Amino acid sequence: MKILIVNGPNLNLLGTREPEIYGTLSMEDYLENLKSEFPSHELEYYQSNIEGEIINRLQKDDFEALVINPGAYTHYSYAIADCLKNIQKQKVEVHISNIYKREEFRQKSVTAAYTDAVLSGFGMDGYRLAILSFKS
Amino acid sequence: MKILIVNGPNLNLLGTREPEIYGTLSMEDYLENLKSEFPSHELEYYQSNIEGEIINRLQKDDFEALVINPGAYTHYSYAIADCLKNIQKQKVEVHISNIYKREEFRQKSVTAAYTDAVLSGFGMDGYRLAILSFKS
Amino acid sequence: MKILIVNGPNLNLLGTREPEIYGTLSMEDYLENLKSEFPSHELEYYQSNIEGEIINRLQKDDFEALVINPGAYTHYSYAIADCLKNIQKQKVEVHISNIYKREEFRQKSVTAAYTDAVLSGFGMDGYRLAILSFKS
Amino acid sequence: MKILIVNGPNLNLLGTREPEIYGTLSMEDYLENLKSEFPSHELEYYQSNIEGEIINRLQKDDFEALVINPGAYTHYSYAIADCLKNIQKQKVEVHISNIYKREEFRQKSVTAAYTDAVLSGFGMDGYRLAILSFKS
Amino acid sequence: MKILIVNGPNLNLLGTREPEIYGTLSMEDYLENLKSEFPSHELEYYQSNIEGEIINRLQKDDFEALVINPGAYTHYSYAIADCLKNIQKQKVEVHISNIYKREEFRQKSVTAAYTDAVLSGFGMDGYRLAILSFKS
Amino acid sequence: MKILIVNGPNLNLLGTREPEIYGTLSMEDYLENLKSEFPSHELEYYQSNIEGEIINRLQKDDFEALVINPGAYTHYSYAIADCLKNIQKQKVEVHISNIYKREEFRQKSVTAAYTDAVLSGFGMDGYRLAILSFKS
Amino acid sequence: MKILIVNGPNLNLLGTREPEIYGTLSMEDYLENLKSEFPSHELEYYQSNIEGEIINRLQKDDFEALVINPGAYTHYSYAIADCLKNIQKQKVEVHISNIYKREEFRQKSVTAAYTDAVLSGFGMDGYRLAILSFKS
Amino acid sequence: MKILIVNGPNLNLLGTREPEIYGTLSMEDYLENLKSEFPSHELEYYQSNIEGEIINRLQKDDFEALVINPGAYTHYSYAIADCLKNIQKQKVEVHISNIYKREEFRQKSVTAAYTDAVLSGFGMDGYRLAILSFKS
Amino acid sequence: MKILIVNGPNLNLLGTREPEIYGTLSMEDYLENLKSEFPSHELEYYQSNIEGEIINRLQKDDFEALVINPGAYTHYSYAIADCLKNIQKQKVEVHISNIYKREEFRQKSVTAAYTDAVLSGFGMDGYRLAILSFKS
Amino acid sequence: MKILIVNGPNLNLLGTREPEIYGTLSMEDYLENLKSEFPSHELEYYQSNIEGEIINRLQKDDFEALVINPGAYTHYSYAIADCLKNIQKQKVEVHISNIYKREEFRQKSVTAAYTDAVLSGFGMDGYRLAILSFKS
Amino acid sequence: MKILIVNGPNLNLLGTREPEIYGTLSMEDYLENLKSEFPSHELEYYQSNIEGEIINRLQKDDFEALVINPGAYTHYSYAIADCLKNIQKQKVEVHISNIYKREEFRQKSVTAAYTDAVLSGFGMDGYRLAILSFKS
Amino acid sequence: MKILIVNGPNLNLLGTREPEIYGTLSMEDYLENLKSEFPSHELEYYQSNIEGEIINRLQKDDFEALVINPGAYTHYSYAIADCLKNIQKQKVEVHISNIYKREEFRQKSVTAAYTDAVLSGFGMDGYRLAILSFKS
Repeated sequence: MKILIVNGPNLNLLGTREPEIYGTLSMEDYLENLKSEFPSHELEYYQSNIEGEIINRLQKDDFEALVINPGAYTHYSYAIADCLKNIQKQKVEVHISNIYKREEFRQKSVTAAYTDAVLSGFGMDGYRLAILSFKS
Repeated sequence: MKILIVNGPNLNLLGTREPEIYGTLSMEDYLENLKSEFPSHELEYYQSNIEGEIINRLQKDDFEALVINPGAYTHYSYAIADCLKNIQKQKVEVHISNIYKREEFRQKSVTAAYTDAVLSGFGMDGYRLAILSFKS
Repeated sequence: MKILIVNGPNLNLLGTREPEIYGTLSMEDYLENLKSEFPSHELEYYQSNIEGEIINRLQKDDFEALVINPGAYTHYSYAIADCLKNIQKQKVEVHISNIYKREEFRQKSVTAAYTDAVLSGFGMDGYRLAILSFKS
Repeated sequence: MKILIVNGPNLNLLGTREPEIYGTLSMEDYLENLKSEFPSHELEYYQSNIEGEIINRLQKDDFEALVINPGAYTHYSYAIADCLKNIQKQKVEVHISNIYKREEFRQKSVTAAYTDAVLSGFGMDGYRLAILSFKS
Repeated sequence: MKILIVNGPNLNLLGTREPEIYGTLSMEDYLENLKSEFPSHELEYYQSNIEGEIINRLQKDDFEALVINPGAYTHYSYAIADCLKNIQKQKVEVHISNIYKREEFRQKSVTAAYTDAVLSGFGMDGYRLAILSFKS
Repeated sequence: MKILIVNGPNLNLLGTREPEIYGTLSMEDYLENLKSEFPSHELEYYQSNIEGEIINRLQKDDFEALVINPGAYTHYSYAIADCLKNIQKQKVEVHISNIYKREEFRQKSVTAAYTDAVLSGFGMDGYRLAILSFKS
Repeated sequence: MKILIVNGPNLNLLGTREPEIYGTLSMEDYLENLKSEFPSHELEYYQSNIEGEIINRLQKDDFEALVINPGAYTHYSYAIADCLKNIQKQKVEVHISNIYKREEFRQKSVTAAYTDAVLSGFGMDGYRLAILSFKS
Repeated sequence: MKILIVNGPNLNLLGTREPEIYGTLSMEDYLENLKSEFPSHELEYYQSNIEGEIINRLQKDDFEALVINPGAYTHYSYAIADCLKNIQKQKVEVHISNIYKREEFRQKSVTAAYTDAVLSGFGMDGYRLAILSFKS
Repeated sequence: MKILIVNGPNLNLLGTREPEIYGTLSMEDYLENLKSEFPSHELEYYQSNIEGEIINRLQKDDFEALVINPGAYTHYSYAIADCLKNIQKQKVEVHISNIYKREEFRQKSVTAAYTDAVLSGFGMDGYRLAILSFKS
Repeated sequence: MKILIVNGPNLNLLGTREPEIYGTLSMEDYLENLKSEFPSHELEYYQSNIEGEIINRLQKDDFEALVINPGAYTHYSYAIADCLKNIQKQKVEVHISNIYKREEFRQKSVTAAYTDAVLSGFGMDGYRLAILSFKS
Repeated sequence: MKILIVNGPNLNLLGTREPEIYGTLSMEDYLENLKSEFPSHELEYYQSNIEGEIINRLQKDDFEALVINPGAYTHYSYAIADCLKNIQKQKVEVHISNIYKREEFRQKSVTAAYTDAVLSGFGMDGYRLAILSFKS
Repeated sequence: MKILIVNGPNLNLLGTREPEIYGTLSMEDYLENLKSEFPSHELEYYQSNIEGEIINRLQKDDFEALVINPGAYTHYSYAIADCLKNIQKQKVEVHISNIYKREEFRQKSVTAAYTDAVLSGFGMDGYRLAILSFKS
């Protein structure tokens, strides 16, 4: 199964950004671990700070399952929400931190209603759990 | 008269995206129809999923009238609103569906106050009506 | 096609009421123009300041398409909204001024969800565009 | 006992209006049934689409008990509410559908506080139950 | 000076309606007193329970000064507000009771911004004070 | 027909609790009256102050029609609401007092949308009217 | 009758402060006019910019009627409101401008409920009307 | 590792309750599957409709990790939230359906901030993923 | 005087639960101190995590004065509030911590209006002060 | 221990102001009682109607414990709140009436978060209880 | 140029009050530094804890430029706002701390709209920057 | 010191865009002035209409101090806010106009809490003041 993993703004800094919240493992290293754990899946990773570029990538629709962490766009990007609504694939939204423990604005997701399921607070492990949830 | 038609995010998928709401005609085919109907106007079409690229295009200010469907950016892009505010041309905002029949968030437009007029719910025909409204 | 045009309260004063917003053309003169432009349509005009009389008129249901400008009733008449909901004809709501540029209370329409489409800000020309939108 | 039954706007269309919500029985036929069931009561029926006419009728105050379904005016007519407040008779407010299952605006009643009791969701049967509740 | 005094819904019952709030003097008797006190003014009195009829009366615009107590319509009739906005005469809004001591909904006036001044809580005397305020 | 009558918290005190609101008749005595009036129905009465025990009782689902007065749980028990949603029987919600005349919090019912109909303000008589509404 | 006239903060500048709103007549000159017009009343004038000093003055309670324009304190001084509540005299609140035409915050009065009546928008003439309203 | 799985109100009906939302597998059968999949863990299951009984169970604190689906109590039980706050173990909150796709009230969780992580929308599989997330 | 002291959910853990907020003294030990200090009073202590059980206990009404700390139920239990409303005894609500320094939801008490007085922030000492306040 | 007792606006009228709420005992007489009851404490009393004077007094910081009843300033004086925040002494806020039984605005305290504890509804006895709570 | 520097309540304690927020430099020492840095300006400093005294000082209007830190009055003193509105001089509002990082109530300024510009978060240095901004 | 100056959307039009608000000086000319005034600093200027490109530039983190005017993104870009939060340098947010005098939406800044200080209303001079505030 081809799985696309999409990270939104500032998530290219994982491992260095606010490590007390997001941990010290870089996304690149973490992806290597994931690929080892799921050799039968094809994992593609995409990150952009630009809202519209994320939409451009998603519109290619060349995957069977999607793991998306829209970062701060989670809270206001109706454009990404509209894009997700149009994708008829397995879709899981992941948040590294438990958004219920953070600022009020982080507790509103405009995208979650257009995915199948949401994971929040599992740290980097959330991406792995999302993959484990996919039905082949 | 040179008329610029601008479509926002996900509107490149017209014809395939949620056809029960947006219909099955692609924007490209529809534009051909428009050009036939208005041979005396010069129609230019621009679409982008990227908020700032839409602003870049609008700032060129090389048109006499504007038809804009900001898509989901309608509901939160104060940046596009500021850009529209600065354009001293005929400006019409178009929405394909009747936004009053849809989700609450779609009923707020932050851009409409900076255009001259708004059309909502006429399907693809809204673009034609907008052009018909322009004073030469 | 028989088209009913309904204007709500204070719209009998078009041409004299707040001309900087609504222009100086009277509705009667404007209607003559419309009839000339659309000789194949039967245009009937009805205006009342009384909410319930507007409902009485609409309930006759003796038309094929409706252009309605509910005036101030747009913003609170759930009674007219209920009436519109029950009419299975082509229906367009028209506002002469761009309601997004005016007072906050004018930006809420309780009737628009029960029409097919909405036009706002085209001045008197909005009625003409509404007629142009009807499918025969 | 003389009982006045008052129906507000669009309720003259009972039997044809949105039959999936309001049923297919006309108010006139239903009234005949009621009169048969309650031969010892005098039942008078009044309907108007005009808010002020309903007030005019209520002010006659020539009845001993009132069954009122203010229709859409339930949700905003402080004028009818003021009128009801001034009537010192048995008063029951009836809604055909269960307003708690419908749009948010239908869940606010500005008139109910000025009646003795409220019935909602019993279909046409609500009028009968209201009459059954009156103390002679 | 010709002065029009307009009373809205349920104010035809002054003297009998909620006398603990509105007193026991009927409007008719009170008007006789007013006419005696102001022999040099022409006082015309109009009352209606029907929102649109009040607009009809106001649109005649055959007076030099207006005293209006819109009753419950004060709180939601944008239609009367629009009508008042269009009248270029001296205009005073009167409320018999002190609206700040009553229900929350009575503390919002949608019409007051379109009159010159507002009087509230002077009982029937408010009409007299309004007349005293007019500049001849 | 087997009818279950369920009363929520503090309704075991009917007859002694706030008699100016709830009257002086005890529920037990009232039930005797009901049984006499409806000899062909089997009436079972259940009362608990414990939210979850009410759910336990409702889940037995051994009745054909339900009269429920959830008392204060009406206003916040999404747990009872979920339980009601799952019951495919005739269901009527009863409130002894007219909730529209009382504190604001009593005007919100989280359970009413999951019953068929609601009665409020008929005093103890509400239970009888509910039974009269059932279709056998 | 001894009448106390109290003006709140910045009202010592009447005649020079925002003359387009408050006019060009100083309060001192205006008071002379009032005294001439009401020779049988004793008029005392008090002004302070200090909230608590206004309370100190009011607590002396050495007057039979009060005209108070609390200025900006109208909108937030619960302390003055509490003080007014305790005064068992004729009390009228005056605002020079029509507060309904101004900023939203000026439309809330925390003091008005503790006076008998309110006048707004009559310019300086409001003080005279207030005096005219007093019952001797 | 001893893992406690706690289900809140109405979740004893899994398999029969709203199967279009919650599926047709009973919790008991599902638990058997879980036990087979995780033979090295001790899985204990507890369900109650009674808020306080859930607290009683949690206070025993005889487990190393907690999977809790508080059902409707998620949305208002500050009592369960306080209890969770006091438990220093691994804690995951599970919702079978994607709460972001359902009623507004289901999108507020008062308990989630006191667990480590939240899973929503994975169906019954959510319990399995929660267990997979635990660190031994 | 017989005094009933009632503690709500999670307050059975006093002494171990969040000791930085609630202190390290257990309620049992504290009660011994209280009994020593007030030998002439009969002190009965009741604690339950179950909302309805607290109501059951209160309804026994076998005491002359009540000290109640409803714990988290303070913030949403209208059922306990209704129960308190019906008790005609001296009643004091106690909160161990200063609720004004904590989360926003803890600053709303739905029960306090139905007690005579409220104490907040005195630590365990609040129970003693409540007893000291009772009039014998 | 030197204890400062501070009363805010209108509390100089205790004994005469709204005696049904505040009782008939003057603060001066009550203070004599307090001094008799607490001979080992030095009690100083300060009252002012002027917000800033209260701050001036508090800033002297010449006391070991503070009992403060800010009166109406409780509800909006962030200036007094800032002053209290800076005082590192034992601090108790007292309200004579139970603020939860009164107007909504009285239920918000902007100062309480900057004191240690709050007493409300004990009548004049609240001052005595506050003193009893101080640790020497 | 004569520059008036006004500090509001509790700002007389700079240097000792919450030094982690406001620093340890006293305003008096800081003023000496300012005077040295701006020998060509006349700097006058005024501080008061009393809202109305600040208005009294501002009304003297004997300066060419104003630096004002209204302290807590920033958030509710419409009286100071009205006073500032009437001053036709250069006006800068200064906040020592970054109000966007603090409590929600500190993020609302009712005075800022009546000054020319606002500085927040520069510590004591804000006063110097304000002076640097003045045009001579 | 290397200082990065970042301008957000539409600020490339300074000098031509809404000159009554933003003045007629272009940013390029203004920068030349700044460079002359601060010869010892290295000033780099970056402008983009694209939210994500601004983040890309900021993430380079190759500066010692930051002056940022996020333009319209100020009001909704949590993505830029997250980026700023991660930058451990001196950071000042600048707004050319006084945002407190403009539309309500411009008074909310989602980014300001993640900078050290904010300047608003100084015109182009705000950039200069920001630089003056930096500590070397």
